[in-house]
Amino acid sequence: MVRVGVVGYGYWGPNLARNFNEVAGFRVVAVGDLQPSRLKAATARHPGIDTTTDIARLLARPDIDAVAIATPVSSHFDLAMRALQNGKNVLLEKPLASSSEQADRLIEEAARRNLVLMVDHTFVYTGAVKKIKDLVQSGELGDLYYYDSVRINLGLFQHDVDVIWDLAVHDFAIMDHVLAQSPGAVSATGISHVAGGPENISYITAFFDNNVIAHVHVNWLAPVKIRRTLIGGSRKMIVYDDLEPSEKVKVYDKGIQLTDSREGVYQMLVGYRAGDMWAPQLELTEALRVEVEHFSHCIESGEKPISGGEAGLRVVRILEAATQSMKERGRLVELSARSPAT
Amino acid sequence: MVRVGVVGYGYWGPNLARNFNEVAGFRVVAVGDLQPSRLKAATARHPGIDTTTDIARLLARPDIDAVAIATPVSSHFDLAMRALQNGKNVLLEKPLASSSEQADRLIEEAARRNLVLMVDHTFVYTGAVKKIKDLVQSGELGDLYYYDSVRINLGLFQHDVDVIWDLAVHDFAIMDHVLAQSPGAVSATGISHVAGGPENISYITAFFDNNVIAHVHVNWLAPVKIRRTLIGGSRKMIVYDDLEPSEKVKVYDKGIQLTDSREGVYQMLVGYRAGDMWAPQLELTEALRVEVEHFSHCIESGEKPISGGEAGLRVVRILEAATQSMKERGRLVELSARSPAT
Amino acid sequence: MVRVGVVGYGYWGPNLARNFNEVAGFRVVAVGDLQPSRLKAATARHPGIDTTTDIARLLARPDIDAVAIATPVSSHFDLAMRALQNGKNVLLEKPLASSSEQADRLIEEAARRNLVLMVDHTFVYTGAVKKIKDLVQSGELGDLYYYDSVRINLGLFQHDVDVIWDLAVHDFAIMDHVLAQSPGAVSATGISHVAGGPENISYITAFFDNNVIAHVHVNWLAPVKIRRTLIGGSRKMIVYDDLEPSEKVKVYDKGIQLTDSREGVYQMLVGYRAGDMWAPQLELTEALRVEVEHFSHCIESGEKPISGGEAGLRVVRILEAATQSMKERGRLVELSARSPAT
Amino acid sequence: MVRVGVVGYGYWGPNLARNFNEVAGFRVVAVGDLQPSRLKAATARHPGIDTTTDIARLLARPDIDAVAIATPVSSHFDLAMRALQNGKNVLLEKPLASSSEQADRLIEEAARRNLVLMVDHTFVYTGAVKKIKDLVQSGELGDLYYYDSVRINLGLFQHDVDVIWDLAVHDFAIMDHVLAQSPGAVSATGISHVAGGPENISYITAFFDNNVIAHVHVNWLAPVKIRRTLIGGSRKMIVYDDLEPSEKVKVYDKGIQLTDSREGVYQMLVGYRAGDMWAPQLELTEALRVEVEHFSHCIESGEKPISGGEAGLRVVRILEAATQSMKERGRLVELSARSPAT
Repeated sequence: MVRVGVVGYGYWGPNLARNFNEVAGFRVVAVGDLQPSRLKAATARHPGIDTTTDIARLLARPDIDAVAIATPVSSHFDLAMRALQNGKNVLLEKPLASSSEQADRLIEEAARRNLVLMVDHTFVYTGAVKKIKDLVQSGELGDLYYYDSVRINLGLFQHDVDVIWDLAVHDFAIMDHVLAQSPGAVSATGISHVAGGPENISYITAFFDNNVIAHVHVNWLAPVKIRRTLIGGSRKMIVYDDLEPSEKVKVYDKGIQLTDSREGVYQMLVGYRAGDMWAPQLELTEALRVEVEHFSHCIESGEKPISGGEAGLRVVRILEAATQSMKERGRLVELSARSPAT
Repeated sequence: MVRVGVVGYGYWGPNLARNFNEVAGFRVVAVGDLQPSRLKAATARHPGIDTTTDIARLLARPDIDAVAIATPVSSHFDLAMRALQNGKNVLLEKPLASSSEQADRLIEEAARRNLVLMVDHTFVYTGAVKKIKDLVQSGELGDLYYYDSVRINLGLFQHDVDVIWDLAVHDFAIMDHVLAQSPGAVSATGISHVAGGPENISYITAFFDNNVIAHVHVNWLAPVKIRRTLIGGSRKMIVYDDLEPSEKVKVYDKGIQLTDSREGVYQMLVGYRAGDMWAPQLELTEALRVEVEHFSHCIESGEKPISGGEAGLRVVRILEAATQSMKERGRLVELSARSPAT
Repeated sequence: MVRVGVVGYGYWGPNLARNFNEVAGFRVVAVGDLQPSRLKAATARHPGIDTTTDIARLLARPDIDAVAIATPVSSHFDLAMRALQNGKNVLLEKPLASSSEQADRLIEEAARRNLVLMVDHTFVYTGAVKKIKDLVQSGELGDLYYYDSVRINLGLFQHDVDVIWDLAVHDFAIMDHVLAQSPGAVSATGISHVAGGPENISYITAFFDNNVIAHVHVNWLAPVKIRRTLIGGSRKMIVYDDLEPSEKVKVYDKGIQLTDSREGVYQMLVGYRAGDMWAPQLELTEALRVEVEHFSHCIESGEKPISGGEAGLRVVRILEAATQSMKERGRLVELSARSPAT
Repeated sequence: MVRVGVVGYGYWGPNLARNFNEVAGFRVVAVGDLQPSRLKAATARHPGIDTTTDIARLLARPDIDAVAIATPVSSHFDLAMRALQNGKNVLLEKPLASSSEQADRLIEEAARRNLVLMVDHTFVYTGAVKKIKDLVQSGELGDLYYYDSVRINLGLFQHDVDVIWDLAVHDFAIMDHVLAQSPGAVSATGISHVAGGPENISYITAFFDNNVIAHVHVNWLAPVKIRRTLIGGSRKMIVYDDLEPSEKVKVYDKGIQLTDSREGVYQMLVGYRAGDMWAPQLELTEALRVEVEHFSHCIESGEKPISGGEAGLRVVRILEAATQSMKERGRLVELSARSPAT
């Protein structure tokens, strides 16, 4: 039985606690939060659980084996480092840390102590993204052309991070998982419409090898909610709409082929190649459940998590580069080629 | 009766010819095209019409008062300049010319000769865009925040222009008309997936005064067709979906308002402000018909067209800047503040 | 404080228990179910609550003031009658009872004892249906023409009731509430595709005064989920799509007007009259919460519930007539004009 | 070269004329219409064509081999009979005739004279319906369960026929083609909302052998346009949405399977069986073109048309029975088992 402490019981913490309690092998024994009202909510849901506002003491408890941290990003490094130093396995809400330098240090600390460091890139554990990764990696799409995601809605403005760190982090994590490569450079633009607040709209282009281009559009101020990703290849293309109740992933047997022009001097016609569309059945298990089970498996087996520190670091690097480019209105920012944590 | 010559009878020319014939006051008397097969098609549709492959001769005919040009962009300047020099009023398919320098010279020539120079920015004559302009200019949306357009589908690759000049030109023309201001700078990215071909995907950000940002996503290689524009303001927001058979324009009484945080240290909550949604009835007249009638009106009255040479020039400047930025992977390109044609 | 016993803790009981506990003035003190596993689930959610498989004893407890019954329809009458006879206020899951005769007797018993008898017609407490009722009753639609509902999906087959009693009951309850009149006759068809099972597809037409027609299509075997109601009037029309995340109710300023024929002998043209579409903002409170608060209000004030025994009876009468007509493949079944419970 | 006369140049006649002219082997030589304005329109489109208001004379022209009739239903029998008696092959707009007795007589006349009699059941020549017929007839769906169609919009009221004869005729023709069997009985309801006018809303249930049920909902007064058919089988189900620009036909690998109850006494659970969804590529050729080519083929080869007189008769019988049932508010009307034209 792995005894778990949950730190941060705001929006996401209750989901973590619920899933840890429902997965065999885990038991949540303590919840820490700076807000007494949140601890009261935790007690109401989990009668008899220990609650505390003294996070340091929770992280030091010898009877706790693993810590799940769902606090603002700015606190991730301090809390996770302290937990690792106390010998705890750590699951951190996304993004892993506020900087790649912090991420590096967490990775090193976990490696030195042989502890599991995992970041909650929830989407990579969904049936949809798993199916998409299979399709891309198996070559079903042919040569990869582009990855394009829109993630917009009206809602929660964050005060400590911009819309890139809040929303685009999901897309970067999915891209990292599906494409299995890192971009060489990014160019981003964006703007803030709340005086003194972080940017609430951003557009990020990421350049990969082999003419692969990715683009992410995130916006906290949209009148409609959209969660749609297009992935184009030379043989097939994918539309992934996360808001579809079913058929979230559609695979189009469509593409282009160069043909002789029908219009002579006027235009070269690139012919439609259109075939069937196909929406594969997807695993329906709640992603967070799958993820917590994977965390359990990694603690037991010593395996590296799918969304371990390195994945978290790669995503933080893109976040850093994107924010930097956005501040400079699109200036291309190269990502260093240095491999992580070696 | 204004006697019209149509130059270029490929994809768009037949639509021009049909509308000129259906608008009182015009009559199409001649069609010119370098391809005999296109002239045969013109004769089949308009028995008895004069057809010719000798465009220069057509442009010199003394019995022709106006010329509609629907040829590749690269030929726009030469054909239009010759027509103006021969004293013809000119309607040019979009974009006006291949460069702002060419556009300047056409504007000067038309001004000197008191002729109408008009560019076929078709969308600005649709009921949808007219309604959107009214909503934006009347202040109904409050302070303008952003303009975001997606114009993607699978299809016609052009060989002489990239996807910006082919598709984004529509968005730039609509933006110019609706926002009634020009961007100060643009940053664009894009890529070509057909060896040696022009870019087939592009993402363009345009920066305007007062924190207004615009973004256009164009793609010739998408598995689905999307034509959707979001326009956000401080009071209301618009979703314009040109593929909707009805209700193309939806106005959302939605926005944000800062509220006290419910989560304390964790996040500042910007509250939803949600009200009714409203889809105004739109004029249904075919846009090209409205446009041809406007051309007629301008010839008669001497009025400046809504989509005259200046509008065409402003759009060409954005096209130029976007392409230049795209070639340099997002480098910010300032648009000169110089007023056109003065 | 009204002390509540919940009888039946299957699919709907937990929702009832949760809402009773969240509404001030109620406290759930006991849960009864014949299945020990369900009682275990109840204890997990509500530690310390009394649970029992002895329903009769629960219904007799003197410290219980009100009972919420969420059991199969066939048990409604016995359980509710016993509860009323023991002096409890009663909230029954829909439909009220298995027959109008049973419904009559429950109404009489409640009236004699001055107790609240309420049936859980959940939809009439939704923001969508409340808005629709306002629109219809205010005359906004003009003369009412028709009410048409489709409620289909793939899923739960019931073994004790057919698809009319399971799904169409929702539509009959909404119709009763929105139209504020009862049909004079019904004609229904349907079929069973599971040998020995109840009908899983049904089509019911209900005839009202003044040429108003209603139709309900219910199906347990559809590949897609649809919840859509059209309401047509002489001035406006409503589309109510309960699966829309927002804009569930759309009001179309559309209709017909007779015009002179353009086609002479061929056809009379009834002109489109098309105006704006409008999606009013809706109350978002969970319907069951609103309903439980209304139950509380009726217990305190002695007011008749919106979905009281009489509404429940009217709906049961339509259910009876529809099933009877379906068994006889569409034969018109008149509904008796006798008023309920007088 | 088959020389064709087109009778009736209203809404559909121009489409017939265009397709006849574009199919090799046909030439339209004359157009007849009682309205001079329609003849003027015909001349504008087809300069030099013969036009006449004297339909009898047109039908008697010895240089005409085939006649396409697109006039109101009430005139079908007289015109088609006269054409057959004059030795012309006949293509009639749907429905074939105003009564099954008329249809019988046309079939006999055509048979006696060895002429082609074909009814314009356009939809059976679409790529979508052809694919659906393949799927149903190949057994891909398993045992057939139901056929359910909705065909509603706001628009053209007919004065000479009700909405069943105007719209449901399409569904009956598709059903006849796809199911390859005739219903044994129908029950229909409906109503008229224009005083003195024909019914503008109707609901028709058709009962087939082996527990197959069909239902058609037609409405001239709906605020939205819907053209959607569901076809359910024991193994797979189809959703056919004719308004989808692509993916009109979707095949769901979904169904039910009986499972042990999880709810004990409460409900029998019929399990979801959910697999992939698949949208096959469809032929895109215009249906009317395919149909006219088939008419040509039948004239040349003497083959029976897919939508010959017998198909037309079967559809008219359902129309008659449905209208009769509707007049009697749902009374079941048996279709005689007598085979056509023997």
